[in-house]
Amino acid sequence: MSQQYSSALLERAVDEFAKLPGIGRRTAMRLVLHMLRLDVGQVDAFTDAVSTLCHDVNYCSVCHNISDDEVCQICANPSRDATTICVVENVQDVMSIENTQQYRGLYHVLGGVISPMDGVGPSQLEIDSLIERVDAGGVDEVILALSSTMEGDATNFYIFRRLQGYPNVKLTVLARGMSINDELQYTDEVTLGRSLVNRVPFTGR
Amino acid sequence: MSQQYSSALLERAVDEFAKLPGIGRRTAMRLVLHMLRLDVGQVDAFTDAVSTLCHDVNYCSVCHNISDDEVCQICANPSRDATTICVVENVQDVMSIENTQQYRGLYHVLGGVISPMDGVGPSQLEIDSLIERVDAGGVDEVILALSSTMEGDATNFYIFRRLQGYPNVKLTVLARGMSINDELQYTDEVTLGRSLVNRVPFTGR
Repeated sequence: MSQQYSSALLERAVDEFAKLPGIGRRTAMRLVLHMLRLDVGQVDAFTDAVSTLCHDVNYCSVCHNISDDEVCQICANPSRDATTICVVENVQDVMSIENTQQYRGLYHVLGGVISPMDGVGPSQLEIDSLIERVDAGGVDEVILALSSTMEGDATNFYIFRRLQGYPNVKLTVLARGMSINDELQYTDEVTLGRSLVNRVPFTGR
Repeated sequence: MSQQYSSALLERAVDEFAKLPGIGRRTAMRLVLHMLRLDVGQVDAFTDAVSTLCHDVNYCSVCHNISDDEVCQICANPSRDATTICVVENVQDVMSIENTQQYRGLYHVLGGVISPMDGVGPSQLEIDSLIERVDAGGVDEVILALSSTMEGDATNFYIFRRLQGYPNVKLTVLARGMSINDELQYTDEVTLGRSLVNRVPFTGR
């Protein structure tokens, strides 16, 4: 082993932290030395939280979001609007939308987007279960909230085709346009073009 | 609990990661979701490394560096020069010096510096044990490698006074001056003044 570690245990802990994304060896060392200064009880709380999550993790049988139970806390919440389903790529996207505090409906986590280059087809994603949810009735709107990439657009189009047999279900997509606080001259031409084509009436708000 | 987490286990793991220094909730979430994608075995390796270190950590009885055994791997290494002791503030400093690959002697980790403002006096630091090491003989040089702060300087001076009874032990301090690659106009005046006073013969290297 390298001579710069006086302790193999220390080196192993630093190695493990340094495997995490975006954490280099210097940061890993700082984190490990921080943990060493904690009470053993606090360290146990940390390792137990990580370990329990990774061993006991479940996915909601309805929306496929991370869940502790058969059905997640969002799907099980009676105050959420069950007539609207927001289709997202992954768990982070659910949190991003929740953080806006602009949405009170339910979610459906696809687990990715259609990407032939990466060998991901519709059958690897939770698209059939989305169709089943719509088919079961009670859904008025499906919001497609995927990334505005080629793969996201392809997935949007695929879901649009699959849902054509449900004329009473409104299919919407997130608005695309200039970001809030963007300067026009720095907005890319595709976004700017789309913003122009999809311009909306000015309401003074 | 906040509605944005679909899982209490997930929230707990994110909370724990977010307690680490320099890690916000967004990064904590990214790290936790990364851990969720790992095999359970990899997660176990991570939690076990952290847990084992914090439960089993020892400090070297000689130099007080982190160690797995009674004596650390640096003190126990017969190829290191036992006649030189480098006095540092903490464990990170040992690694910083090891990383320079310019030092083959031993260390002595004080565990801090004298700081009356923070209620840290000489008795809370491993200064007595340093004097004992010197007193035991076989030491030719003690290098003071503390931070160049007021507290570091006070500690240097205190150790200098304590070691006055050992005229055969050379007491040195790290060179202070311009950093490598520093531009003169951006060097602070105290550093620049000290560099000027402590100028050394130009050897062409």
